[in-house]
Amino acid sequence: MPGNSFGELFRVTTFGESHGTALGGVVDGCPAGLALSEADMQRALDRRKPGQGLSATSRKESDAVEILSGVFEGLTTGTPIAFMVRNENQRSRDYESLRRVFRPGHADWGFQQKFGLRDHRGGGRSSGRETIGRVAAGAVADMLLAGEGISVMAAAVELGGIACRELDLEGALARPYFAASDEAPALWDERVREARGQGDTLGGLVRIEARGVPAGLGEPVFGKLDAMFACALMGVGAVKGVEVGDGFAAARATGRTNNDPLLPGGRFASNHAGGILGGISSGQDIVLTAAVKPIPSIAVEQDTVDLDGNPARVKVGGRHDLCAIPRIVPVLRAMASLVLADALLLQRRLGRA
Amino acid sequence: MPGNSFGELFRVTTFGESHGTALGGVVDGCPAGLALSEADMQRALDRRKPGQGLSATSRKESDAVEILSGVFEGLTTGTPIAFMVRNENQRSRDYESLRRVFRPGHADWGFQQKFGLRDHRGGGRSSGRETIGRVAAGAVADMLLAGEGISVMAAAVELGGIACRELDLEGALARPYFAASDEAPALWDERVREARGQGDTLGGLVRIEARGVPAGLGEPVFGKLDAMFACALMGVGAVKGVEVGDGFAAARATGRTNNDPLLPGGRFASNHAGGILGGISSGQDIVLTAAVKPIPSIAVEQDTVDLDGNPARVKVGGRHDLCAIPRIVPVLRAMASLVLADALLLQRRLGRA
Amino acid sequence: MPGNSFGELFRVTTFGESHGTALGGVVDGCPAGLALSEADMQRALDRRKPGQGLSATSRKESDAVEILSGVFEGLTTGTPIAFMVRNENQRSRDYESLRRVFRPGHADWGFQQKFGLRDHRGGGRSSGRETIGRVAAGAVADMLLAGEGISVMAAAVELGGIACRELDLEGALARPYFAASDEAPALWDERVREARGQGDTLGGLVRIEARGVPAGLGEPVFGKLDAMFACALMGVGAVKGVEVGDGFAAARATGRTNNDPLLPGGRFASNHAGGILGGISSGQDIVLTAAVKPIPSIAVEQDTVDLDGNPARVKVGGRHDLCAIPRIVPVLRAMASLVLADALLLQRRLGRA
Amino acid sequence: MPGNSFGELFRVTTFGESHGTALGGVVDGCPAGLALSEADMQRALDRRKPGQGLSATSRKESDAVEILSGVFEGLTTGTPIAFMVRNENQRSRDYESLRRVFRPGHADWGFQQKFGLRDHRGGGRSSGRETIGRVAAGAVADMLLAGEGISVMAAAVELGGIACRELDLEGALARPYFAASDEAPALWDERVREARGQGDTLGGLVRIEARGVPAGLGEPVFGKLDAMFACALMGVGAVKGVEVGDGFAAARATGRTNNDPLLPGGRFASNHAGGILGGISSGQDIVLTAAVKPIPSIAVEQDTVDLDGNPARVKVGGRHDLCAIPRIVPVLRAMASLVLADALLLQRRLGRA
Repeated sequence: MPGNSFGELFRVTTFGESHGTALGGVVDGCPAGLALSEADMQRALDRRKPGQGLSATSRKESDAVEILSGVFEGLTTGTPIAFMVRNENQRSRDYESLRRVFRPGHADWGFQQKFGLRDHRGGGRSSGRETIGRVAAGAVADMLLAGEGISVMAAAVELGGIACRELDLEGALARPYFAASDEAPALWDERVREARGQGDTLGGLVRIEARGVPAGLGEPVFGKLDAMFACALMGVGAVKGVEVGDGFAAARATGRTNNDPLLPGGRFASNHAGGILGGISSGQDIVLTAAVKPIPSIAVEQDTVDLDGNPARVKVGGRHDLCAIPRIVPVLRAMASLVLADALLLQRRLGRA
Repeated sequence: MPGNSFGELFRVTTFGESHGTALGGVVDGCPAGLALSEADMQRALDRRKPGQGLSATSRKESDAVEILSGVFEGLTTGTPIAFMVRNENQRSRDYESLRRVFRPGHADWGFQQKFGLRDHRGGGRSSGRETIGRVAAGAVADMLLAGEGISVMAAAVELGGIACRELDLEGALARPYFAASDEAPALWDERVREARGQGDTLGGLVRIEARGVPAGLGEPVFGKLDAMFACALMGVGAVKGVEVGDGFAAARATGRTNNDPLLPGGRFASNHAGGILGGISSGQDIVLTAAVKPIPSIAVEQDTVDLDGNPARVKVGGRHDLCAIPRIVPVLRAMASLVLADALLLQRRLGRA
Repeated sequence: MPGNSFGELFRVTTFGESHGTALGGVVDGCPAGLALSEADMQRALDRRKPGQGLSATSRKESDAVEILSGVFEGLTTGTPIAFMVRNENQRSRDYESLRRVFRPGHADWGFQQKFGLRDHRGGGRSSGRETIGRVAAGAVADMLLAGEGISVMAAAVELGGIACRELDLEGALARPYFAASDEAPALWDERVREARGQGDTLGGLVRIEARGVPAGLGEPVFGKLDAMFACALMGVGAVKGVEVGDGFAAARATGRTNNDPLLPGGRFASNHAGGILGGISSGQDIVLTAAVKPIPSIAVEQDTVDLDGNPARVKVGGRHDLCAIPRIVPVLRAMASLVLADALLLQRRLGRA
Repeated sequence: MPGNSFGELFRVTTFGESHGTALGGVVDGCPAGLALSEADMQRALDRRKPGQGLSATSRKESDAVEILSGVFEGLTTGTPIAFMVRNENQRSRDYESLRRVFRPGHADWGFQQKFGLRDHRGGGRSSGRETIGRVAAGAVADMLLAGEGISVMAAAVELGGIACRELDLEGALARPYFAASDEAPALWDERVREARGQGDTLGGLVRIEARGVPAGLGEPVFGKLDAMFACALMGVGAVKGVEVGDGFAAARATGRTNNDPLLPGGRFASNHAGGILGGISSGQDIVLTAAVKPIPSIAVEQDTVDLDGNPARVKVGGRHDLCAIPRIVPVLRAMASLVLADALLLQRRLGRA
């Protein structure tokens, strides 16, 4: 797998660069007979558009998605579902000053070392716009999951070090920043204003939950469900940490408090495990947390080097978010959906799902 | 991938259950011409044997490894390297009481739901003994990495909530618990004694570092190097959280402090990123942390259900570790080696490694 | 792999149906720095367009390809190369009569059984138009191969039972039917006219050769180079047989005549093996032959059943080729190029290519 | 996939060399709950043992198989089924003369070019003994297929240019050479005696049929069922050609005669297609033919080169079969079973098998 595909049986391959012709993807392996329309994808894509909070860029993106194949008379056909979003509003010249210098905290250096050349415009393939393919594919996965009674939700639970006082994921879609609590957005606005005044940027935490997941998903050894979630979430740019259930707190707990006693009816007395035992879903809610680093594009001059290895200074212009939250929230949610769709089809092969 | 293989080009497939005939694995894709002997594998396996600290089980395992194929006159041939360890000292009857009940915190419930039946003896495939295959394969990966000047090391940095005061990974192999500091083992011994007195168990944190990793490893989007590490570490039983570099702390930092300025000569002024930018190695040291939950086999009676779904009580006898540390340390190290070996071969395909 | 991707390291994923919005594909894993333009792809696609011989359909297809990603300033970037061809000239109504009946010899029945529904317009995903993705991807592979001094050529060597008297593959591109000899096209024209008069269709044989292939490509057991070629060619619609080197004739030869003695300088005294020994390229020319069945869309009424399983009669209208030759020639050539590009990158991983 | 694994969901990885410690494999992805014993595997392995006809080597192999994992109380557990056969009766010194020369028609040259070194004893990994892993894994596949009412059979239909007069595959197991007709073995004995007198070797044709295969197996584009069969059969050493259904004869037929009209009840009026349409099983019998080249180890001196590229003469001693038939027959049959088991599990993912 050269790196732009995800999933074994429900497999998405994405393509596209920030300032190329188009971004998109191909979903291969989606079963036939699911209702699917461009509106389903567009609704998901609109949630990752800028303009949903103080932390966002002023770049305007219409990001209208077009389905190219795999849907006939409103239903998936079992063949590849290709889709794309044409890039518009490209101000490539904004990036000309970045052609020969590496922005600290960005993928510029790595791409140059890996490939020997790079598309410097807006980060090229490493741009946040790459996630368009993930989110649109996640919308297909959601159609499959919905048919099985599985729902996936996500919310920002901390921003700039300020945590939500409660966790209400159902209501997050209606709140600024996709926040998990009502009081958080106002506090976060203030934190964002403060950071902007300092030319600085912020990070935060995102929580993802999946409900209705049947017990038995995930493979025992290398394909553990939690390993797949970790791969999925850590594979989103800016994520530096992943937890399942109690996560790092579990490392400080003891066995007596960390174990979740089983109850009749497939229930459990607690859910420290986050719905996954031995890499296999238990039937409880799946609970995941991702740590999102601050946006590396800060509005102050930084030390770096140029293509020749000489010292240089760089101040990143362009139009940038101040925090990956809220835009990363639907992306992480989409990744969780992709993991579950794949695990569901993998389980079907055993004749038990 | 049905779940018992790891890696694309340097691929290990493992097999075996705790009380079956044998455990082992097959390494496929290892280049020809590397010196490799059973002693190389045995040395790595001996590090995961019990008896290295107060926290360990009294089960005696000789775990002598036999290489079955792929090595000719002391050199790898490019063909699959199969190896196995026969199970000995099997006291299967110890587990008869567990045939019909599910141990809380273990994979029992998940296996039953997934497969409809399970080998209840010692956890079957979900036993910690499954990691024999990982560690032996990791020893092969290490031979490949050593030839490229890459070394991987690991140490316990926290146990039962008590953190090491300093981080000296080079010295860890010589310390009890594979601890990262000299003062920690005595404190941990005390913490372990305390927990044992309460019939309780402990967790901790493990840090892994890789040095000499060239810049450019890892794939940009879904095959990010950090995503592969997250998959690798979270896929080890008992791990509930993974961090790259500053991890969760990065979520509370700001861009000004979190960015690592580039310096001439491929150096950086700091390493908050943990050696990975945009999913691609930067040439700095790789830094990873894994959160390990407490062993779920506690010496007190717990609530659970039986195969018929009726309430039951279970007290797990057998011979169990009190903490996955230190035995999980060489396992996590092996997984990191496997990721790097695979990434190295993947990079070679581009004609740039 | 759900079935629409080909290759391990040089991997193409294709999408699209005959009468959907667009057809295309994504090439993932192509190394950076190759010169590539839409013109390179278009040239390859134009060779599979109709209108190159008496055997072809009158459907007009402009099939203008657009590259969507992965190329920057004329060079590949190492990121996915997506491309598409919009469908035009769609006369979907032509196919309305086929919505509820299965055409004998076509994929209609299989798709219905597999997916429970199908896009009946022009065969949907099973249309010959699906090969657009293969041919465009093959053009990318050819750029990689050319840089290594490898060339792939293909020609029709038999049509309607009439074989070429000689085999000149270099000249095939300039001849009608991509014939391997000068005298064949006139004879084949006559054979085609005869068949058309009977409402009948024809098949034939295609030979593919690759020159400049280094010794050592291919994996010893399940990834044998000849197995990959067999998979690649048999996976093109209408192909029912594949030979490597002497093929079926080898089964009637004896060891004394079939063995190819080795000579100094990496040469061989003969090439009965078709350039592959033990699944690994020998450095000789690769020689492959594919048997192509007659087009199943004949101009006479045939027995079949409808969606309800009742007997029916079907006469396939629409615009159809009378023989898959010549249009299948560039498709088979492209598949061979894809196999070689993948094998080349796989070999590089061993540090020996 | 580095080349020693086969199948996506029902995946076998094999290992071992002719004169190494052991040969074997790991079957990953087999559903839980199938009855399986070493006797099931041994029965299949015994069919590929020498001593079943005049064409066979005098090497004695007991080849007793041992199951190492994945079976508990007589049932598969869903975890990897590892098995091995220890090599015995190794007369490695027989091969010392071959350490520095390449045998014509063998994989020696390719291995040396690919890996830079090779295990010269008995062909190492390229030995026919490599097929032990395939046949044992095929026995597992057969248990899965049997539960679905699918049976796979194979027979030799031609040897040394002498074809069977009729095709009775059911009776083949009871006949010398696994011949498809009663009269063939005596004729083949004579042909073998003649070849032996000339120090020569022979090839032949093998036919494989699968009955009870449900319609719908196979993926439409790159995972076509016939492509998978072609890959599977061509990937067996000595196979140089593969046909599906009428194969090369179809290339000379016309559409009117080659099409198989559909009849009510999922039946067809003929089976020229060999049970596969558009790459998807039709529900008819699957029919495959493989062309097997003569054994390259002939008893006369041949021209070749040595490791330094200098001209040399080689006469292959050792203990060799004179024809790959009959021993290749159960191997090809096993490969067909592996393809079907994998296709069956792949189809289950769609919720339709």
